[in-house]
Amino acid sequence: MKRRGGRRPGNPDTRQAILSAAREVFAERGFDAASMRAIATAAGVDPALIHHYFGSKDQLFLAAMNSPIDPKEVVGQLWADGWDGFGERLIRFFLGIWDSPDGVAAIALLRSAVSNEWTARLMREFVLTQVLRHIVQATGMDPAEAAYRIPLVGSQLLGLALIRHVIKVEPVASLPADALAAAIGPTIQRYLTGELPEELRRGVSGSR
Amino acid sequence: MKRRGGRRPGNPDTRQAILSAAREVFAERGFDAASMRAIATAAGVDPALIHHYFGSKDQLFLAAMNSPIDPKEVVGQLWADGWDGFGERLIRFFLGIWDSPDGVAAIALLRSAVSNEWTARLMREFVLTQVLRHIVQATGMDPAEAAYRIPLVGSQLLGLALIRHVIKVEPVASLPADALAAAIGPTIQRYLTGELPEELRRGVSGSR
Repeated sequence: MKRRGGRRPGNPDTRQAILSAAREVFAERGFDAASMRAIATAAGVDPALIHHYFGSKDQLFLAAMNSPIDPKEVVGQLWADGWDGFGERLIRFFLGIWDSPDGVAAIALLRSAVSNEWTARLMREFVLTQVLRHIVQATGMDPAEAAYRIPLVGSQLLGLALIRHVIKVEPVASLPADALAAAIGPTIQRYLTGELPEELRRGVSGSR
Repeated sequence: MKRRGGRRPGNPDTRQAILSAAREVFAERGFDAASMRAIATAAGVDPALIHHYFGSKDQLFLAAMNSPIDPKEVVGQLWADGWDGFGERLIRFFLGIWDSPDGVAAIALLRSAVSNEWTARLMREFVLTQVLRHIVQATGMDPAEAAYRIPLVGSQLLGLALIRHVIKVEPVASLPADALAAAIGPTIQRYLTGELPEELRRGVSGSR
């Protein structure tokens, strides 16, 4: 898989200081309330330097999480063919990351989110601001509905990673991705496009 | 929830020595190959003492895992009404454990399985020998099919616990169990009773 970002400019110590400060500020304040200025202050550098090193706040966040993917790009690719077959494509793409060299980073991220409250917060912000928003933007899904649908999708995806790559229950641990996409794709498809059950719909209209 | 086992006989140090030895031997050899005799030797006690303290090998295993439930009992209860509505009942029961005082033990178990290879092995043995077998026994499900169906169910259940109780993504973290049972129950139902996709069926018949 192509690495995000390409060249990595700047002094490695300064980069690390910025990434540490970013993790702290993003986890403490949440993505939206975390300003580039606050991160620069925490890292003891000029805000312009962060822009120069990392680009946008989104990109800084993905670097701070050591995310193996940029969800915006991924959603764009998966959405190219619309909803038809989306669930299966998502499972195949998702398993493709975990089965690739980037899978090591993904497992480390999952382990850390489970054992460490701060990484769990970053993961939560990742789901809500990086994944959910880009899906809403690309697909035009109702944001209030998306708030229910995306965490359901997240639960199936993370659980699949857990059973296949961490707890390693056979035969799921060694099944080809296509077999799992055929078995689990319809679940994802239903969570994204199916009728929301009455109990959830009450929640959705209540939150508007 | 009722604690398993009732009274806990014996010297606490001896109990702990047996439980440590059991965790080690079960993780190293797997449930089936781990004999009570080998566990007794590792703990430096007489095998009869283990029977006296813990009863059967199943019960020793559940105690060694600090499992908040006895899957055999649970499957029996859930199966009382047959397949009809099984998926929703399972989700409600599962969330009931995590939302109860036993939820602390469940979260500790999940954390440990993610960070520690030995606990991951115990968890794998738990899924395969405690959950899968009792479901096959109670429901008469084809064992070769169950081997595919149960890990799929496990992936959705563990992922739900992860999103709701560990990473805590809203609104899933605070939705009532009924709403989640309505949304996720059909997934479980399909994994347990739906048609297996062609790609999986090839695997099933291949493994016979």
